[in-house]
Amino acid sequence: MAESETKVVAWGPLKEFTREVFTWAGMPPEDAEAEAGALIWANLRAVDSHGVLRIPWYLDNIEKGVMNPKPNIQVIKETPATVLLDADRALGPVVTIKVVDMVVEKAKKMGIGWALIRNLTHQGALGYYSQMMAERGMAGIVFVSNPPNMAPFGAKVPGVHNSPIAISVPAKRHRPLNLDMATSVVAGGKLWLAVDKNMPIPEGWALDKEGNPTTDPKNVGALLPFGGPKGSGLAMMFECLASVMSGNPVVEPVLFGREVGPPTEGKKEQAVGERLNYVPKHLQNSVVAAIDISTFTDLESYKEHIDNLIDGIKALPKADGFNEIFVPGEPEERSFIERSKKGIPLPEGTVNNLRAVSEKSGVKLPAGL
Amino acid sequence: MAESETKVVAWGPLKEFTREVFTWAGMPPEDAEAEAGALIWANLRAVDSHGVLRIPWYLDNIEKGVMNPKPNIQVIKETPATVLLDADRALGPVVTIKVVDMVVEKAKKMGIGWALIRNLTHQGALGYYSQMMAERGMAGIVFVSNPPNMAPFGAKVPGVHNSPIAISVPAKRHRPLNLDMATSVVAGGKLWLAVDKNMPIPEGWALDKEGNPTTDPKNVGALLPFGGPKGSGLAMMFECLASVMSGNPVVEPVLFGREVGPPTEGKKEQAVGERLNYVPKHLQNSVVAAIDISTFTDLESYKEHIDNLIDGIKALPKADGFNEIFVPGEPEERSFIERSKKGIPLPEGTVNNLRAVSEKSGVKLPAGL
Repeated sequence: MAESETKVVAWGPLKEFTREVFTWAGMPPEDAEAEAGALIWANLRAVDSHGVLRIPWYLDNIEKGVMNPKPNIQVIKETPATVLLDADRALGPVVTIKVVDMVVEKAKKMGIGWALIRNLTHQGALGYYSQMMAERGMAGIVFVSNPPNMAPFGAKVPGVHNSPIAISVPAKRHRPLNLDMATSVVAGGKLWLAVDKNMPIPEGWALDKEGNPTTDPKNVGALLPFGGPKGSGLAMMFECLASVMSGNPVVEPVLFGREVGPPTEGKKEQAVGERLNYVPKHLQNSVVAAIDISTFTDLESYKEHIDNLIDGIKALPKADGFNEIFVPGEPEERSFIERSKKGIPLPEGTVNNLRAVSEKSGVKLPAGL
Repeated sequence: MAESETKVVAWGPLKEFTREVFTWAGMPPEDAEAEAGALIWANLRAVDSHGVLRIPWYLDNIEKGVMNPKPNIQVIKETPATVLLDADRALGPVVTIKVVDMVVEKAKKMGIGWALIRNLTHQGALGYYSQMMAERGMAGIVFVSNPPNMAPFGAKVPGVHNSPIAISVPAKRHRPLNLDMATSVVAGGKLWLAVDKNMPIPEGWALDKEGNPTTDPKNVGALLPFGGPKGSGLAMMFECLASVMSGNPVVEPVLFGREVGPPTEGKKEQAVGERLNYVPKHLQNSVVAAIDISTFTDLESYKEHIDNLIDGIKALPKADGFNEIFVPGEPEERSFIERSKKGIPLPEGTVNNLRAVSEKSGVKLPAGL
């Protein structure tokens, strides 16, 4: 298989296209703008797995009623430092951007703001939200859990989600440090990208549907955890901290062959059954936390120390085969600068999918596609 | 090299020995008891790298004034949900057990309690504290950062600490889930254990002092991060969340060849120098957080869901070569039960070191050693 051709498009028109498509799909303009912002941010950072390639999947989920374009987002429980919300199946960016505001306000007063969002749908790249918090003088932490797509260490079928986590802190001369990583060897979206590029995946990324190692991105049954029991264990704890904590477990009902449904808070589940051949609904729960740096130390001094930390790490003697040491988020920031100027390259598969979206919605494709 | 002989000792007398040794070293009896409890807990769980093998190292550090047997622990800043403390170089368990009480009380009122402890010394196995919180109806999270001992991804010398993290949540029929992991491929104490057992270490664990791969645990220059950039990135973010946040960076001063000294809060460090050949003082900063489950959902229901999650994961089809799927903390809990009954096996190197401690302190060795 040869890698396919790419086309380059400017981010502005691509964002406009994305926003208009989501408006066509029934979202209020400001929510469509939030969704488009999150997707284009990912593409600009070359995290294409979380960019516009997902548009057809979002539209399909809106059509099926899995994702709600007009959600009724509600606060369920609240303390001065915490909040639990029900997102009514909102698209991730729509609710998460609002929750970032809430936890930042709580953190300013209490030192920390810790939110649980239940029943939201795909958030996109989590680093988008943690970096937003960093730019407001906070350490930002976001993680999520979803129905299983990753084999726990020792299993050959999915039993946990490859739950990602993002952590960001601000620097002064440098861009914020921004760690954004899945607990699998690679994020699931990297498989989508391999499909769009018509490329095989390396061994060690995934198992096929029979539980054997595979290099075919179209026949993946389970992602593999990074670091074996460590990635697997982190993913399981994120299910406990985000989903079970919000009264809305997503892994357990799948393991026992039950549909992932509305919150089961207070309901005592006793049945222990067999695992069924079952495809779960898309659904997720997320923790969004802000820690106010100035509650603990001087913010300007903090940022300077982060600058020094970055300079110090980058100046270390390199291992064989490395020309440069990167700090978390640094390669993506370089892409951001470059793609902001030169445009976003999209593989042929993605372009074809967006063309189909354009035809269906009547929203005109950006110039160059 | 052949693996050395072991001797088996009952945990009760070993704990008594440990407590008396620390009392002899100048700690108040209740603090010596706290320290002994943390070490014996690790040995019972077969996490021998964090058990009594460290006693000579602790005594040496107390003698040198690095660890303070009579610390003046102070609250520096506090909100209803957060607290920053200075531990005055207390031994880890002494201050951390007190802080567990503080964050649990805060979490009961605010939903979350988030503590930063600066200037403490070695905490032992972090799972000890997170599990304590789980047993009190909380999700417990503990992580730490120390001076560098791990090569960041792409470097061949230390530039971050192999900062561990522990996360625990309670179950009902089962023991709490208890993830306790270093961000290196293995914890540093595993090297100590290899030295005590006179065994080589596998390739991939560490680099030697010239930055080359090594299997000699006595010639380690840097641990290696698990999952390459992921373990490396997590460790760097823990430095930002624990050490820089508490106004007490430990990695940065080492990178720039400065002594790790008292808190530098508010002090603007501008110098960017060369990395010197420098052995840092032992010093660490830690985050200890409790999340009150009943603030968000029904606690009994939560515990039942965790039971179901554990049962579901364990019942998954096994990968080739696996007879059983373990959940976080499960192998260690099995050892805990077995060793509580049958005693703790100690390798010859550890026994010889404890004999020297006994001779120096006049505290009688437990029967069997």
